[in-house]
Amino acid sequence: MSQAGWQVDPESGWLVENQTIGFEIRWRLQRLLHHERSAYQDIVVAELERFGRALFLDRILQVAELDEFIYHEMLVHVPLAALPAARRVLIIGGGDGGTLREVTRWRDVEEVHLVELDEAVVRVCRQWLPQLGAGAWDDPRLTIHYADGFAFLEAAPAGHYDAILVDCSDPGTPADTLYSEAFYRTAHRALAEGGCLVQQALSPFIHRDVLTTILQRLAAVFPQRGVYFCPSISYLIGLQAFVWGAKGTNPAAGPARTAPDGTRWYTPESHRAAFLMPPALAIFRASAG
Amino acid sequence: MSQAGWQVDPESGWLVENQTIGFEIRWRLQRLLHHERSAYQDIVVAELERFGRALFLDRILQVAELDEFIYHEMLVHVPLAALPAARRVLIIGGGDGGTLREVTRWRDVEEVHLVELDEAVVRVCRQWLPQLGAGAWDDPRLTIHYADGFAFLEAAPAGHYDAILVDCSDPGTPADTLYSEAFYRTAHRALAEGGCLVQQALSPFIHRDVLTTILQRLAAVFPQRGVYFCPSISYLIGLQAFVWGAKGTNPAAGPARTAPDGTRWYTPESHRAAFLMPPALAIFRASAG
Repeated sequence: MSQAGWQVDPESGWLVENQTIGFEIRWRLQRLLHHERSAYQDIVVAELERFGRALFLDRILQVAELDEFIYHEMLVHVPLAALPAARRVLIIGGGDGGTLREVTRWRDVEEVHLVELDEAVVRVCRQWLPQLGAGAWDDPRLTIHYADGFAFLEAAPAGHYDAILVDCSDPGTPADTLYSEAFYRTAHRALAEGGCLVQQALSPFIHRDVLTTILQRLAAVFPQRGVYFCPSISYLIGLQAFVWGAKGTNPAAGPARTAPDGTRWYTPESHRAAFLMPPALAIFRASAG
Repeated sequence: MSQAGWQVDPESGWLVENQTIGFEIRWRLQRLLHHERSAYQDIVVAELERFGRALFLDRILQVAELDEFIYHEMLVHVPLAALPAARRVLIIGGGDGGTLREVTRWRDVEEVHLVELDEAVVRVCRQWLPQLGAGAWDDPRLTIHYADGFAFLEAAPAGHYDAILVDCSDPGTPADTLYSEAFYRTAHRALAEGGCLVQQALSPFIHRDVLTTILQRLAAVFPQRGVYFCPSISYLIGLQAFVWGAKGTNPAAGPARTAPDGTRWYTPESHRAAFLMPPALAIFRASAG
């Protein structure tokens, strides 16, 4: 089962994740459920102690059952509750289905495009992490595109999307171009007036420099932009950062409408708390305006 | 440098922390600054990439420069700002000095007792982590007792302390008895009317069962009790839980007075946000009343 450059060892029951700054993680695999190498990356689904089932791409944990709802609810409901309405939503990445699940909770959404580079991620997650996407994969409003997110967005009509949700892996992975100023310019063009872009953007303490750079690139394109945070358990970074850029909508002002029932982390209070910037995070407030 | 049962290897530059559920951490040591075995435990101070200097007791990270202020400010200022006044403060544990530093910022505090089991922790931290305690170690209001925290509290006068801050290691370590119902009963007796106890209590997602048990024990003693949270970066648990028990004070109601200047995480807003209980944490709200 082990491959070049890889350290999956089902006999010892350990998987080494070494992308992190300052430390390395050895995940204790209770059960290795699936392992394949797609055209783009190495894909593992495993059962972890306490964290539940988890997806790893190129040895980096992407999603775990224990806390995936925090990330997905805060990525989706913060912008969608800040918008007066959201008819057309674009998800870039998000092949595990969690972001899609949250988007389809909104009744007024008429059209969801999900653009995932790697067909294998969707296939594997539908089979091995079925509760991530749940019924959302069969939603009639959904169109899946197996394509490069940047290229897809370049071909999109101007002013089309009310929300663009970038649920991708980190800079330095195949998602690297999705953190470029050119990408933000393309997203700005594709956003409708009043629309909002949100993207996962690592963490404010461990990846302070990368987050600062992302915000600078965003600021070059979006006069209205900023950052918000939610707890992250399974990424082991403490705080997950999301960056946002908008055309006339300000998610930092709090929800403009009521989010769907059934959320486990998102509430109007957690929406507002996500934008708190204690002095230690003021650097991000200052740089993001 | 390596010892029985230990994996400090300054040549490879790795230190293995294996107390965690579901995963194991290998810290990348930039520099091993100090290593000794005291009468109670193994003590390491090392320089880590990104996390700064860190203290390890028995291979478990206790404090790191990167984010220690979040933990210490939230442990101290939440109860002290909720109290109308705090003249007498007891710190149990806290041998690194960070809790002491925050307590001594309060001008109205007249008396601070710090009870640390292991004299070596104080000595090592004063030498190798001097910014933790800063000038607080020389504060004339401070008395240090090298003693068992539980025994010290049993001998304390009834109704003496306005605040008891338990800044100890986790259950299963030498601090185990500090999480017993008997300890909470003793603390209740030593608290003044209107006083408040706060204790670090692991994390709500990774240590859900342990936190639930701690809250049940606390509830058997304190009709007024609960839990609050702050981000934790260097413990790699996402959210740090603190439990509290009070005699007539309710920290969940927010600050009753202004905290000292110069905090980096504590603000009136972060005080209130610490008590947010989204549905996923409602189990702790229900069990803690």
